[in-house]
Amino acid sequence: MSGSTIGKNFTVTTWGESHGKALGVVVDGCPAGIPLCEEDIQRDLDRRKPGQSPYSTPRREEDKVTILSGVFQGVTTGTPISLIIANQDQHSKDYSQVAHVYRPGHADYTYHHKYGIWDYRGGGRASGRETAARVAAGAIAKKVLSQLGVRIQAYTLSIGPIKVNPENFDENEIYRNPLAMPDGEAAKKAAEYIQQLKEKGDSAGGVVECVIQGLPSGVGEPVFDKLDAALAKAIMSIGAVKGIEFGRGFEAAYLTGSQNNDTLVYYPDRGLTKPTNNSGGITGGISEGFPIVFRAAFKPTPSIRMPQKTVTHDMQNTQLVLTGRHDPVIVPRAVVVVEAMAAITIVDLLFQRILSRIDLIKKALS
Amino acid sequence: MSGSTIGKNFTVTTWGESHGKALGVVVDGCPAGIPLCEEDIQRDLDRRKPGQSPYSTPRREEDKVTILSGVFQGVTTGTPISLIIANQDQHSKDYSQVAHVYRPGHADYTYHHKYGIWDYRGGGRASGRETAARVAAGAIAKKVLSQLGVRIQAYTLSIGPIKVNPENFDENEIYRNPLAMPDGEAAKKAAEYIQQLKEKGDSAGGVVECVIQGLPSGVGEPVFDKLDAALAKAIMSIGAVKGIEFGRGFEAAYLTGSQNNDTLVYYPDRGLTKPTNNSGGITGGISEGFPIVFRAAFKPTPSIRMPQKTVTHDMQNTQLVLTGRHDPVIVPRAVVVVEAMAAITIVDLLFQRILSRIDLIKKALS
Amino acid sequence: MSGSTIGKNFTVTTWGESHGKALGVVVDGCPAGIPLCEEDIQRDLDRRKPGQSPYSTPRREEDKVTILSGVFQGVTTGTPISLIIANQDQHSKDYSQVAHVYRPGHADYTYHHKYGIWDYRGGGRASGRETAARVAAGAIAKKVLSQLGVRIQAYTLSIGPIKVNPENFDENEIYRNPLAMPDGEAAKKAAEYIQQLKEKGDSAGGVVECVIQGLPSGVGEPVFDKLDAALAKAIMSIGAVKGIEFGRGFEAAYLTGSQNNDTLVYYPDRGLTKPTNNSGGITGGISEGFPIVFRAAFKPTPSIRMPQKTVTHDMQNTQLVLTGRHDPVIVPRAVVVVEAMAAITIVDLLFQRILSRIDLIKKALS
Amino acid sequence: MSGSTIGKNFTVTTWGESHGKALGVVVDGCPAGIPLCEEDIQRDLDRRKPGQSPYSTPRREEDKVTILSGVFQGVTTGTPISLIIANQDQHSKDYSQVAHVYRPGHADYTYHHKYGIWDYRGGGRASGRETAARVAAGAIAKKVLSQLGVRIQAYTLSIGPIKVNPENFDENEIYRNPLAMPDGEAAKKAAEYIQQLKEKGDSAGGVVECVIQGLPSGVGEPVFDKLDAALAKAIMSIGAVKGIEFGRGFEAAYLTGSQNNDTLVYYPDRGLTKPTNNSGGITGGISEGFPIVFRAAFKPTPSIRMPQKTVTHDMQNTQLVLTGRHDPVIVPRAVVVVEAMAAITIVDLLFQRILSRIDLIKKALS
Repeated sequence: MSGSTIGKNFTVTTWGESHGKALGVVVDGCPAGIPLCEEDIQRDLDRRKPGQSPYSTPRREEDKVTILSGVFQGVTTGTPISLIIANQDQHSKDYSQVAHVYRPGHADYTYHHKYGIWDYRGGGRASGRETAARVAAGAIAKKVLSQLGVRIQAYTLSIGPIKVNPENFDENEIYRNPLAMPDGEAAKKAAEYIQQLKEKGDSAGGVVECVIQGLPSGVGEPVFDKLDAALAKAIMSIGAVKGIEFGRGFEAAYLTGSQNNDTLVYYPDRGLTKPTNNSGGITGGISEGFPIVFRAAFKPTPSIRMPQKTVTHDMQNTQLVLTGRHDPVIVPRAVVVVEAMAAITIVDLLFQRILSRIDLIKKALS
Repeated sequence: MSGSTIGKNFTVTTWGESHGKALGVVVDGCPAGIPLCEEDIQRDLDRRKPGQSPYSTPRREEDKVTILSGVFQGVTTGTPISLIIANQDQHSKDYSQVAHVYRPGHADYTYHHKYGIWDYRGGGRASGRETAARVAAGAIAKKVLSQLGVRIQAYTLSIGPIKVNPENFDENEIYRNPLAMPDGEAAKKAAEYIQQLKEKGDSAGGVVECVIQGLPSGVGEPVFDKLDAALAKAIMSIGAVKGIEFGRGFEAAYLTGSQNNDTLVYYPDRGLTKPTNNSGGITGGISEGFPIVFRAAFKPTPSIRMPQKTVTHDMQNTQLVLTGRHDPVIVPRAVVVVEAMAAITIVDLLFQRILSRIDLIKKALS
Repeated sequence: MSGSTIGKNFTVTTWGESHGKALGVVVDGCPAGIPLCEEDIQRDLDRRKPGQSPYSTPRREEDKVTILSGVFQGVTTGTPISLIIANQDQHSKDYSQVAHVYRPGHADYTYHHKYGIWDYRGGGRASGRETAARVAAGAIAKKVLSQLGVRIQAYTLSIGPIKVNPENFDENEIYRNPLAMPDGEAAKKAAEYIQQLKEKGDSAGGVVECVIQGLPSGVGEPVFDKLDAALAKAIMSIGAVKGIEFGRGFEAAYLTGSQNNDTLVYYPDRGLTKPTNNSGGITGGISEGFPIVFRAAFKPTPSIRMPQKTVTHDMQNTQLVLTGRHDPVIVPRAVVVVEAMAAITIVDLLFQRILSRIDLIKKALS
Repeated sequence: MSGSTIGKNFTVTTWGESHGKALGVVVDGCPAGIPLCEEDIQRDLDRRKPGQSPYSTPRREEDKVTILSGVFQGVTTGTPISLIIANQDQHSKDYSQVAHVYRPGHADYTYHHKYGIWDYRGGGRASGRETAARVAAGAIAKKVLSQLGVRIQAYTLSIGPIKVNPENFDENEIYRNPLAMPDGEAAKKAAEYIQQLKEKGDSAGGVVECVIQGLPSGVGEPVFDKLDAALAKAIMSIGAVKGIEFGRGFEAAYLTGSQNNDTLVYYPDRGLTKPTNNSGGITGGISEGFPIVFRAAFKPTPSIRMPQKTVTHDMQNTQLVLTGRHDPVIVPRAVVVVEAMAAITIVDLLFQRILSRIDLIKKALS
């Protein structure tokens, strides 16, 4: 493996360049017996699709998924599920502008120096477009989780300086406004903010929050494969993410033990409860059986139309003014990518959890 | 694997409970031909050792390491290096107090529910003591990196509300004060802060910053094994860490693209430069050849002497007042653990980098 | 992973059912900088293709490969190479005959009981057709090896009782006769033998021998990833293979140490030599730098037209008389599959060999 | 990993040189809740121990195992089980004889060329002594299997030309005679044969057969992780093994389809039956639910006292006459090593089998 595969028992391998013939993913380790059709996957792909709002690139990518294997008579067979997404837009662009210049904030320079060869067309493998394959695999992971009562939901918590007001939190709003914010007012303000940046040819970043419900306790492996460590890797592997935190996160570093420890209280009627969830639902790297909460910080889209200093491949200083279509903010489209990566990670560790107790193994094989 | 192994080509497997007979680590994939002796490892273990300051537990752990295999005539042989650290302190404690109660903020509850059995002696496998094995493996990883010109240095950036003042930054201070802070004044203030908490029976958290110098560009694999994703997993796998960020990190989410993008400038005499390092030395998950910078947030030590509400194994509400010896802050002792996990991760991806180009492979085999 | 991926650094993931829309493979870990085009792969696929002789099924499978990613301007980029082969023949058959009956010698029963669901169309994932994807990946592995001076050649050593006569060994014959036998006379006799079985509706097995030349010493990892162990797994993973042996193989069990040990002799002009190669070029699981030789035993094709006793899915005893097109022998078509699996395995361990010595690592990174 | 780890979910990592301080193994992925004590492991170690018959080296190795972690109050905790075996005999030998000469049939040459450094003391890591760690891990794997009704038994099928007569097969004999042969007469003849070779300073090889009973159908993963492929790797990783075959094995290559196919017959009283077991209990790489049968060919012990031609490290031709204590045959001691490697492999794939069906996963988690 050289980085394009994630997971141990539920394994996801993505392939494809932004402007190659197609991109796709192979999911190996999806259990047999799960109803699956292309619509199940298309639904999430459409949430990631660009051109749906003034705040995302007008590029028309159909992003239509086809299931090539692993499903028979509408049910998964236990063999690898191969998904392919054709690249519609692949010849629509002239790359002469970026063929010899390193775009600031992009992976052009690092890929070129790593491999000695660089598919400059739209960022090649480093393009955000690769996440379409992740979303497709994530939709399968969510199908598995739905069979086991686990639900994952992400949303935009902030865009630039505009934050969701917890008092206005409304789950339905997430699907109502194009910014996937659970607060209509904040979404309006954020839209205006993005509009201003767009006019300047600048871009915005933001924070995505993700909540996982229904996950039983005991998920996550000790030491190196802790649930939070595995989620951190999966989420940090999304190109624009620069940080991740669980529960109180960085704030916890400023609290005292007596402020930060979650206490446990038992009620005969409600069972075990936690008045606070500073841990974000994970202790010692293992799920507590309470909701899991984490946040990921997305840097602003590096593609901006404002002039930028940079160098050419032959180390000439130059100024780059990008033309063409770019997202002034990618955060809303990244929400479903965060859900996908979380789902893929959770399935893998949830399966592993079965193997940690001989009584569960006996029950399964009995 | 069930979580106790990390790495693909340079593989580290730790074992051992806090109060078992011993703990240790097996390092497989350490190249042959590297001079290695127990002192090389002991040096780092001593930095983690408790009882060195009023701000860490007075527990006496000798933490003496023994090399059991993989070294012949003072040089690594390329076969697994097995290290063992005997547990001195293993019978010095009475656990009746915690045998049937879940300590808030500890992994007692999650381990018990995951495995159905729970080694309550000092936290068993979930104990911070497990990190001694990581530090030992990290010392070997650092030996490998030193052969390749890579240097890793971590330090305490803040303890509770007390932060290092960048203007006072003095590398030598890191080794001069018991809190591993590169700012003598801040260290003094932090010491007073901890002293107050200690008297109250409370504890503090903090932030550790880590800088990696001399790493060539091209290290890190696309998509899922990005350098920052791999580091995030490795660092988040340290028990008390609740968040990690690279370069500007969470701050970047509030900036615009024009503020956050690092520009590239070439000078004939100095070569390629970056006036800013908002990226933290990583773009598209691959090292740029500039310094790598990340920060990890540590929660306050959960073991506090103040009374805490919790439940017993049989779900009786109770109040726990921990006695015995506890660190009011573990951040300074964790600094070398962060270095260890970073070193282990970097070695693995640096090796992988060779395999990404046929010209490097030919050079090696020629 | 659930079995469809092989390799650690050079990783091959195949997908696809015999009669699904397509089958394919993703190769991750192919180094950047290797010239690669579809013809390089098609050449080997054509060697596996059926319908080329009276001794293989007349099924028309075009088996045309398309490169979907990982190659830019005719050169590998270091990112995953995705290959796809459309299934031409997918609707040409009526499966009512086998939809409810377990074919003797086939995986119908075991797959059905493993997964609870069974794609009976042509054997689904268990079909020999899956090996087309391996051959495609193997062609890429051979391209890598050719850059490093390693050459792999397999051929038919025997079909049923008809064996190649070592005295007649002629490498060119391998490509001249349809049975890939390096002995024209033996090939004629084997052809007659197969013809007789074909008329009876029966089938034949055989032995494939493989020789690897130009592999340097030091390839193979101690203990569990020995070169012969890794090759054994890769070759045994070919459906019809029931045994594998290296050098003298099973014969060695009947010899004495003095008969079986290979002696080493040094000549100033020829360097180090081995008068015998009973070891098959591997000692302690590591390549000696002498030719590697192994043999794989293939069982006779289980699909025969003679009546066979078996049971239906609902455990009714029945007699099955298979109709339709079947290979009376698959050994000649399997020769290139053996080469492919050997190549994939060798590339992975050859890469690993670089990482076993710090001097090689320094050389590569210098 | 560099070869010292095997297994995906049940992972075994061995370490230690023949004449270092100790050798050992870490087992990660052993489920919680299994009673385990040192005696469980010692029993198998004693079966491997030398010095028990005139046909094995008189070396005194106590091979006493100590459990260092992973067991609490007599039950496995689900965390890594670390086992250590001290090397008693480590200083009892003078190596000047072999320090500069490559022993024919041994790994001296290949290890030296792979690593550039070579622990010549008794073969270092390549020593058969490493298998003690495998046997210890295998004993744990057998404990897991015994909880699931799976039984593994290996025995000596032949030593040199002396074969077990199937008509004399007596299971109890395996433990009665020092050669682990299920045929007392054959054992007598084999003993005489070995005695003659011993007097000449020569050695013998042999074949070990292994039978696995009680394994349910559906174990083994498609394509690359087939049950027979995984077993082949595990068994071929035993130093002296030169070949492996399943069921009819190499013989099958000479049969016709109608002779080799196993037919299925259902009896209301006995259920599904197979009059023959040519497949060795595996079809398409997946267990059928019938007994698994395989054979491994062991080469004769390379250490012989007869004079042998070889070269020194500086390529001088020389003659080597080994002195000291050597096994004239290692096959009987290898029987328990074969059982261990089979057990380790079966546990891993049996666990995996649970994850291949959503209904089994639901059952386990319900």
